[in-house]
Amino acid sequence: MEIGSNNDELYSITLFVVLISGCIVIGHLLEKNRWINDSITALLTGLCSGMIILLTTKGKSSRILEFDEQLFFIYLLPPIIFNAGFQVKKKQFFRNFMTIMLFGAVGTLISFCIISFGAKLLFASLDIGALELRDYLAIGAIFSATDSVCTLQVLNQDDTPLLYSLVFGEGVVNDATSIVLFNAIQRVDLSHVNSKIAAQFVGNFLTLFVTSTLLGIVIGLLCAYLIKKLYLGRHSTDREVALMMLMAYLSYVMSEMFKLSGILTVFFCGIVMSHYTWHNVTQSSRTTTKHAFATLSFVAEIFIFLYVGMDALDIEKWKFASDSPGKSIAVSAVLFGLVLVGRASFVFPLSFASNFARKSKSDKFDLKQQVTIWWAGLMRGAVSMALAYNQFARSGHTQQPGNAIMITSTITVVLFSTIVFGLMTKPLVKFLLHPPMLPENGIPSETASPRSFLTPLLGNEEEVEVGKENSNIHRPSSLRMLLTTPAYTIHHYWRKFDDAVMRPVFGGRGFTRLDPVSSEEPSVY
Amino acid sequence: MEIGSNNDELYSITLFVVLISGCIVIGHLLEKNRWINDSITALLTGLCSGMIILLTTKGKSSRILEFDEQLFFIYLLPPIIFNAGFQVKKKQFFRNFMTIMLFGAVGTLISFCIISFGAKLLFASLDIGALELRDYLAIGAIFSATDSVCTLQVLNQDDTPLLYSLVFGEGVVNDATSIVLFNAIQRVDLSHVNSKIAAQFVGNFLTLFVTSTLLGIVIGLLCAYLIKKLYLGRHSTDREVALMMLMAYLSYVMSEMFKLSGILTVFFCGIVMSHYTWHNVTQSSRTTTKHAFATLSFVAEIFIFLYVGMDALDIEKWKFASDSPGKSIAVSAVLFGLVLVGRASFVFPLSFASNFARKSKSDKFDLKQQVTIWWAGLMRGAVSMALAYNQFARSGHTQQPGNAIMITSTITVVLFSTIVFGLMTKPLVKFLLHPPMLPENGIPSETASPRSFLTPLLGNEEEVEVGKENSNIHRPSSLRMLLTTPAYTIHHYWRKFDDAVMRPVFGGRGFTRLDPVSSEEPSVY
Repeated sequence: MEIGSNNDELYSITLFVVLISGCIVIGHLLEKNRWINDSITALLTGLCSGMIILLTTKGKSSRILEFDEQLFFIYLLPPIIFNAGFQVKKKQFFRNFMTIMLFGAVGTLISFCIISFGAKLLFASLDIGALELRDYLAIGAIFSATDSVCTLQVLNQDDTPLLYSLVFGEGVVNDATSIVLFNAIQRVDLSHVNSKIAAQFVGNFLTLFVTSTLLGIVIGLLCAYLIKKLYLGRHSTDREVALMMLMAYLSYVMSEMFKLSGILTVFFCGIVMSHYTWHNVTQSSRTTTKHAFATLSFVAEIFIFLYVGMDALDIEKWKFASDSPGKSIAVSAVLFGLVLVGRASFVFPLSFASNFARKSKSDKFDLKQQVTIWWAGLMRGAVSMALAYNQFARSGHTQQPGNAIMITSTITVVLFSTIVFGLMTKPLVKFLLHPPMLPENGIPSETASPRSFLTPLLGNEEEVEVGKENSNIHRPSSLRMLLTTPAYTIHHYWRKFDDAVMRPVFGGRGFTRLDPVSSEEPSVY
Repeated sequence: MEIGSNNDELYSITLFVVLISGCIVIGHLLEKNRWINDSITALLTGLCSGMIILLTTKGKSSRILEFDEQLFFIYLLPPIIFNAGFQVKKKQFFRNFMTIMLFGAVGTLISFCIISFGAKLLFASLDIGALELRDYLAIGAIFSATDSVCTLQVLNQDDTPLLYSLVFGEGVVNDATSIVLFNAIQRVDLSHVNSKIAAQFVGNFLTLFVTSTLLGIVIGLLCAYLIKKLYLGRHSTDREVALMMLMAYLSYVMSEMFKLSGILTVFFCGIVMSHYTWHNVTQSSRTTTKHAFATLSFVAEIFIFLYVGMDALDIEKWKFASDSPGKSIAVSAVLFGLVLVGRASFVFPLSFASNFARKSKSDKFDLKQQVTIWWAGLMRGAVSMALAYNQFARSGHTQQPGNAIMITSTITVVLFSTIVFGLMTKPLVKFLLHPPMLPENGIPSETASPRSFLTPLLGNEEEVEVGKENSNIHRPSSLRMLLTTPAYTIHHYWRKFDDAVMRPVFGGRGFTRLDPVSSEEPSVY
């Protein structure tokens, strides 16, 4: 079509599509490698191509290299988080819900305080130019957030389900925390922090958390209800898949529009959709949505790491840093140290507190597990980068040396942590937790217990959920556990409620009669 | 995620997602209706919401309403055309290849001449301001192009395969024609048209057609080869799906980057992918790609019509038109009349010529079929609109009354033709061709002929291609047809070549050994 299209845009799209395809192929070839993963492949590819672009354009900064926060937050992040919710092992997630909340809310707050005050204290001696109190608090908020996208890359839900649900869940929850923090930084008079403001902070967090979660649940249920009511007896795969995709995305953009936590909303929308909506559609729709969501998320992740890698080499940003390389390295090192200390100072105390509440000894976190939790959440990635740009690179703000150094230091921390932790987490998890021998969630293998006994306690024995939810290993095996651990009692009542009220209305496994032929339904065309 | 995101963008995304979801649900409810189709639903929804936005913002033009050609050509059009190629009935398409080329190339040229000269002649008496010769030629190029997206909406490949492949194929081919025309308009000295320039024009068209097609075929084959070589014995559904999507899109953007016809390229890439690549992947990948491509295309189509509907009400554009409503209506009527005449003046003569070349009487087009071909290609839609914007609304160009009237007249023609033809084509096709009684491709029902006899002539009897390629009805049933119709002989040799050379290298049905378990392969996560 002859149209005066912006050829620059076509060039960059072509380049990105070629690079992403290349990363997919290379990632496949290196799949057996125990160190490398897709994110590192993409990051290194991004760095290399960034370098080639720099050399061929002779150091002229090109628009291809620029990181666009809008693109990241509006288009790339939602499919990743939605897919994580869609494929999450729900039982594992909700069993550890209180611990996840504790880590995500209280832990992030502790880490935020330590990083903010640490930065204020240590940067003073480095003389890096004018940073305000707000900037230090922003640094705390940016670096205290676990990057959920990175976590997905190094932790495997099937190998280490507890670790995954804890660290990834924490990443989802602390999105809400960091929004409340950001809002508090912007609105509250920082010189007069008292108990009233602290109470307000807690109230804000709870409101935001509850409304974000509810919005996701409501949209997920609406989609389930719509598909169940409209499509009974007359299925159209394309319409079903389109509706699921659109409603999932809707939950994210609506949440962002209302200034809620889009990540929380779309994550819970994914959980609801996998529990109800997914069971109301045809077999082809199930296969399609399962793989299409996974593929979109996979491509978005590769795109993000590629993008971060290419953006890191944008020459403009490094001009200030190259004037004072020592200072820049010092700032990066300080930030990285603070991240390490900030995370340590909440993982170990909170694990201790959490162990205190857990009665069953096998449920407690031992030291090895605590170290793994600490380590696995240390990566900082595209989310930190986008937030740093948002804070320090707005409207020519980069021109100030202090801001420019913050940007390059963030890039340094992101590259260093993604590459180093990306390379080392898999081997470390293997070394510390030996997943093949002992499942790391602390319940020793009692898989031999008879199925007939388990069934009434859990109620969804025959379940074949998205992403193989039930691996027998992670199932409580005695009545004792049901009685001693409140989560199981809640789960028991939830199942009763779910079977009696929710599933008959919203559909779900066993509550949707599908024609046997429905998988062969013609598409819209 | 607290990010200073542009809230306007979030509002418009939310609005569009809600409206598209609404259209899908309404479209489903009205599916049984014989008049309404999805495109009309979307167009009317767009008009209504445009009106509501106008009323609530009190006539202030809003950015939501603005039609963005880049968005249309770079993101919305490729999935639609690719999916059409992916699901096209390949045999039907290639059997009529010469006729399609004749209609798409020569036909478009005839229509172009008539519309251009007609507009120049008739607009002179209307006094609509300064239009140059180039503008008239652009009008010819814009309105002579059949809108492939509209065609997809009113013609059903399963009910009327010949009509579909002719009119849709023509729409794909005339994209190349219109690019050559546009280039010719821009480069050639228009006052000295001679036989040398005409020869040059034919040469340009052939070069463009061949290179665009080849690019699509090469990328499709590359993708097939890559997946076949890399993934043998070790399949990953997400990677396969991602590679297919990315390579398909790559073919379009590369083609556009090289100033070729992206539509032709991505269409042929779709054909190659459905013939080779699709057979090299796991069963889940097949289901996923088939439905994911269809869904993307479906959503993109709804989006386009919604967008056209909303854009039509942008108050800015109508300011000039409302100053002289009579003139605006006259221009629209003239354009619409020229479209009717332009199309008639090539469909009937070229059908006659095509009948002349077809020896078998049952293969010839009768008058009813010719009328249907003429009628079904009259719709002008988003492609015309995008081209009109490109020509008449560049960089504040709209300020000239002549250009402003051209824009509003294009919108009028698009709305009128989409609604009127959209409503009437289905009933008309039913009335003229009675597809349930007599298949409209002229071969009377010889479905009773024994399968064992057909097999050697066609060679792909057991084929279960994407979108049920083989409906028995449209199959030649005697050796006589093979001998009298050259297309069958070419097809015969092609099959031999395909089986001997192409499929062993690039995979394809019967040439890829898939493990029986491969459909249960775990995804990347």
